[in-house]
Amino acid sequence: MKIAILGGTGSIGEGFALRWAEKHEILLCSREIDKAVSSAGKYTEALLNKGFFCCGITGCKNETAINDADVVVLSVPYRGVVTLLKDLRPYFRDQIVISLVVPMKKNKWFEYTPPKQGSAALEIQEILPETVKVVSAYHNVSAKKLAALELSLDYDVVVCGDDDRAKRTVMELTREIKSLRPLDGGGLASSYMIESLTPFLINLALRNGLSNLGVKFV
Amino acid sequence: MKIAILGGTGSIGEGFALRWAEKHEILLCSREIDKAVSSAGKYTEALLNKGFFCCGITGCKNETAINDADVVVLSVPYRGVVTLLKDLRPYFRDQIVISLVVPMKKNKWFEYTPPKQGSAALEIQEILPETVKVVSAYHNVSAKKLAALELSLDYDVVVCGDDDRAKRTVMELTREIKSLRPLDGGGLASSYMIESLTPFLINLALRNGLSNLGVKFV
Repeated sequence: MKIAILGGTGSIGEGFALRWAEKHEILLCSREIDKAVSSAGKYTEALLNKGFFCCGITGCKNETAINDADVVVLSVPYRGVVTLLKDLRPYFRDQIVISLVVPMKKNKWFEYTPPKQGSAALEIQEILPETVKVVSAYHNVSAKKLAALELSLDYDVVVCGDDDRAKRTVMELTREIKSLRPLDGGGLASSYMIESLTPFLINLALRNGLSNLGVKFV
Repeated sequence: MKIAILGGTGSIGEGFALRWAEKHEILLCSREIDKAVSSAGKYTEALLNKGFFCCGITGCKNETAINDADVVVLSVPYRGVVTLLKDLRPYFRDQIVISLVVPMKKNKWFEYTPPKQGSAALEIQEILPETVKVVSAYHNVSAKKLAALELSLDYDVVVCGDDDRAKRTVMELTREIKSLRPLDGGGLASSYMIESLTPFLINLALRNGLSNLGVKFV
């Protein structure tokens, strides 16, 4: 598959590019094309140096990548995502869109601040064409651990979405990352649960002297 | 300490009685005193038969137990808890009250249905005298596993509460149960997060063919 990663030069984007490039063609996106191209080169080199196979990581502009992709990963901050997607809407057809987006604010602690639709995933589905299949996942995967290829990630990834086939594809992509276990979290309406876990996990880490927390359901 | 367990003849109540009786005096409560007395006898026998020490498990009426207790565990369903606690209010002074209460309903799936205060824990704090210290914990511990004394419970228990000393006491009680790790979840206002995890976990188990799910933050 061709996987476009929006926000691909950010830390979590790097992890997905590195982990999925062995089986998929990665289109690494950034609004700054130079940065995208240079990160793509750096990630490719890192993979080859470590002896991994690489199907290709290409630095792209958002528009081109979305147009070409089967799967679009939204690893961008909530702030700005509405404007960004409204601008990019014409390039979407029927892709699978994986939303990692978490609306939250920080006062003393982090707080989940969902839009009126109930979650970022539902808001994103509303902005994009109806034929696009939004799936919500990976909000609680540590960017640092994801990018560390030697690490096996003994976490669970809860996947929410209304299109069963799209959800199965994302669950399959999850299984391709060593030790991640995908769990079916139901429809997109349940996304608020996994989105709201993110500020909760950050607070929990801060309060208890932990870091890079993920979740495991045992 | 003297620990009163309201709903003590229910499955999760049994687990707490068995696990804490080694170090604490357990007041096992039920509205039906006969049932409380018979369960207390049964649990004591089970502990002694397995070679455990038992400080004493006594079947009591709610009123007597609350009056005598240092810690009151509310392991009762949400439905009816408001009426129950309004009736029992005169027997509370400054005890620590551990709320396991989760307001939820089932349609096709389970859904968290918090009261207007935002969570059951906040509603309970509002009903009880101000001097009572409500702490929210243990919503996501499997009753079945808790009652199986041979099992080591490799779970995390997030504890929320506004009174630091009460919270520390509950965290200490948590550590006394083999392998449970207490984590500070902040003030009582954060209780909605751990309460809402319960229907989420039940749905997750149902959807993925799992059972008795707990949570581990790794």
